[in-house]
Amino acid sequence: MEPLNLNNLREQLIRQEETIIFAMIERAQFKQNRAIYQVGSIPIANHSGSFLDYLLRETEAIHSRVRRYTSPDEHPFFENLPEPVLPLIDYPHLIQPNCININSKICNIYMNEIIPVICSSGDDENYGSSATCDVSCLQALSKRIHYGKFIAECKYQEKPDLYQGLIRDGDSDGILKTLTNKELELILLKRVKMKTATYGQDIGVDSARMNYKINPETIAEIYEKWLIPLTKEVEIQYFLTDRTQNGVTDKHI
Amino acid sequence: MEPLNLNNLREQLIRQEETIIFAMIERAQFKQNRAIYQVGSIPIANHSGSFLDYLLRETEAIHSRVRRYTSPDEHPFFENLPEPVLPLIDYPHLIQPNCININSKICNIYMNEIIPVICSSGDDENYGSSATCDVSCLQALSKRIHYGKFIAECKYQEKPDLYQGLIRDGDSDGILKTLTNKELELILLKRVKMKTATYGQDIGVDSARMNYKINPETIAEIYEKWLIPLTKEVEIQYFLTDRTQNGVTDKHI
Repeated sequence: MEPLNLNNLREQLIRQEETIIFAMIERAQFKQNRAIYQVGSIPIANHSGSFLDYLLRETEAIHSRVRRYTSPDEHPFFENLPEPVLPLIDYPHLIQPNCININSKICNIYMNEIIPVICSSGDDENYGSSATCDVSCLQALSKRIHYGKFIAECKYQEKPDLYQGLIRDGDSDGILKTLTNKELELILLKRVKMKTATYGQDIGVDSARMNYKINPETIAEIYEKWLIPLTKEVEIQYFLTDRTQNGVTDKHI
Repeated sequence: MEPLNLNNLREQLIRQEETIIFAMIERAQFKQNRAIYQVGSIPIANHSGSFLDYLLRETEAIHSRVRRYTSPDEHPFFENLPEPVLPLIDYPHLIQPNCININSKICNIYMNEIIPVICSSGDDENYGSSATCDVSCLQALSKRIHYGKFIAECKYQEKPDLYQGLIRDGDSDGILKTLTNKELELILLKRVKMKTATYGQDIGVDSARMNYKINPETIAEIYEKWLIPLTKEVEIQYFLTDRTQNGVTDKHI
């Protein structure tokens, strides 16, 4: 990762929009296939969760072995994953040590709020393909939302005096108000709508029809209703993390 | 899968273009990172292949357990994968039994011909992210190319008399000439170029600059040079498969 800088971080979040939009367009090929989210609908030997749980947990196990979750910008959905089989990388300590991980909430919102608006209802039996897309979507959403940690650290470093008072008072509402930039959010929503309209359009050579794989409004609405608020939730949790925990002194104060 | 019909198959191949283009745009975020393709560059305990081999093999093991490779349109890159943990699906027998699998060739072409034209040279150490994208690219390419089996079966059923003579004579050149439709190929290349230009463009709200994540010509060139010829290679191998092997009688003769 680059050194902490709000412009760099915004560039990365902007690039992640493509990853999120592409992943959702891919998922939207298939129906909701709710069986993959229901425990017991697709019984798997020696496994008690849903079909998606199985695929996601097994995928995370591989990724954990190739040290994905040692990177400070990656967060697993499951605990007790296997140890890396590669030597560890010494990442620069850009943010405070913390255990913030809201993936369980992200997963619930994804299954219950996002899937119903990007996929048509019903079952087409493409369980494996759908769940493989789900893994990509969840990983992209989790990465984006937990970037809140880096954003919060950056905002703190820019205005430590302002935030220190709010943090001391445990004033979540004040922190939320201070970190929110409505103008930038509106630009983001407009851009995501344009991207979805562009990347989600069907393209034929001879026809002038304009057909979308996902309604251009939909992903902007998902950002407005879920991704932006969840990112802020991570930011607030991060601000309220004890900045002297684990014996790490705060170099910025 | 739908019943065999050349129009249905073409619709599916057209939709697969998006999957291939999205996957390649995602991979193009990272440098070539050739270390992931070289045996020994990233040593992994108890594994003798490359880093990509490890990630691909482990991913295929999971996908095999959720019965991916029991579907006639999916082909693994590795052998000796674990058995499915789900009950098998009784797929309709749309094509002749065959063992055609050119994934080893696809993998070599991908690493040596495709990666150098979609990624900038050098190493950015994003090995896990790059190899995860590689798995998606390889799976999408393999699926597209092995669709040649369905296309060939369909073409055979449309003109059995024409193909039977060529097959009897083992006339690969004659089969290649007969199955080729230059006009459709040109339409495909034009469409893929338009799609890459559209899906690969950077979109900002306030700027009118046109910046591409992948040169719009590049993926059309990959189709022309590799994907179309490799699909035809599968078609020809399929035509030359003994249509009475495994005791299956040919209902179309």
